[in-house]
Amino acid sequence: MRGKMREPSADKVTAILETAAELFASRGYEATSMRDIAQGAGVSKSLLYHHFTDKYQIFTRITSQSGLGLNEAVARALPKDATASEQLEVFMRTTATFFEENRLSWISASQEFWTSNEAQMSLQMKLRRDSFEHMLRRILEDGVKRGEFQVSDVRLAGRMILSSLNWMYRWYNPAGSRDAAEIAGEYYRMIAFGITPRGEAD
Amino acid sequence: MRGKMREPSADKVTAILETAAELFASRGYEATSMRDIAQGAGVSKSLLYHHFTDKYQIFTRITSQSGLGLNEAVARALPKDATASEQLEVFMRTTATFFEENRLSWISASQEFWTSNEAQMSLQMKLRRDSFEHMLRRILEDGVKRGEFQVSDVRLAGRMILSSLNWMYRWYNPAGSRDAAEIAGEYYRMIAFGITPRGEAD
Repeated sequence: MRGKMREPSADKVTAILETAAELFASRGYEATSMRDIAQGAGVSKSLLYHHFTDKYQIFTRITSQSGLGLNEAVARALPKDATASEQLEVFMRTTATFFEENRLSWISASQEFWTSNEAQMSLQMKLRRDSFEHMLRRILEDGVKRGEFQVSDVRLAGRMILSSLNWMYRWYNPAGSRDAAEIAGEYYRMIAFGITPRGEAD
Repeated sequence: MRGKMREPSADKVTAILETAAELFASRGYEATSMRDIAQGAGVSKSLLYHHFTDKYQIFTRITSQSGLGLNEAVARALPKDATASEQLEVFMRTTATFFEENRLSWISASQEFWTSNEAQMSLQMKLRRDSFEHMLRRILEDGVKRGEFQVSDVRLAGRMILSSLNWMYRWYNPAGSRDAAEIAGEYYRMIAFGITPRGEAD
């Protein structure tokens, strides 16, 4: 912090963050070096270190932007006066759209290195994840109270829903025939109505 | 292959495989060295290299044992004369039990390094994964033909079911109150019947 800092060049910082997300997503966090990021972004190592003290800081910037973005996008999209079913569908579709639009940051943040070991996650990552899960549980609990949902274990129902969305980054092909929101819409229908027929005769 | 090979000591090999699975699961494949494995297993590096030419061979042994085991366990467990619903429930519960009993190998084999990039997976891993998915799709297709299931997209229904099971390794706590098969049983009920009530009045 000594001397004057020049106004950071937004373009360079954007290039650094995009390159880093791409490398974290394709090679993993651990296998990516500061040198790789500088080379990929077309900046010198000294410029890179001028903006970020280390790789962890770059990672944190990427994931906090996308994590905050997800929670905000979903909270904003949820319709206020709506059934729990409508809210659940919006929750699932909005999450999937956000995933699609931020796929590389999402993959970076989802890496096992960060998420399979609580100790490695920053407190902020945990808080964001927890508040995201709670948003979903509130929808499910509301639905149970209103008699819209029959769920014996809200936590587990939430897990199943999040699992379907969380696993998408492992197989989703952006060039495929359906976009992520359509897939989430199908998932919603399956979880809401089940795959066995709902007949009058039943 | 020159000279005579001594009969490998089964105990040492078992210790090597167990240690490696534990390290791959906790640190990741890339961050684990042959030295780490030798130290953890309490064997010399020369003994380790006597049994395995490199880390990849150890990994392949671990995952082929557990991958083959999963496909066999599920195929064996599936009841022959049963409804598609019964078969689906057995498929899900057996998969979850296998996961629980082989958690460290499962986590090793699930690492993104191997599964998010087709090019990094061995042909055998792909064939096993595909044959596992096909087992599930056959159950779903059978159910649709018999009128037991109403599924607009069998592939996507299969994806949702596998996502719920595949994501378990990221959160499942072996010390928790429910075992993996019970959780899979709950998942089965949600996917079969949905979370909205099935009423006569509907």
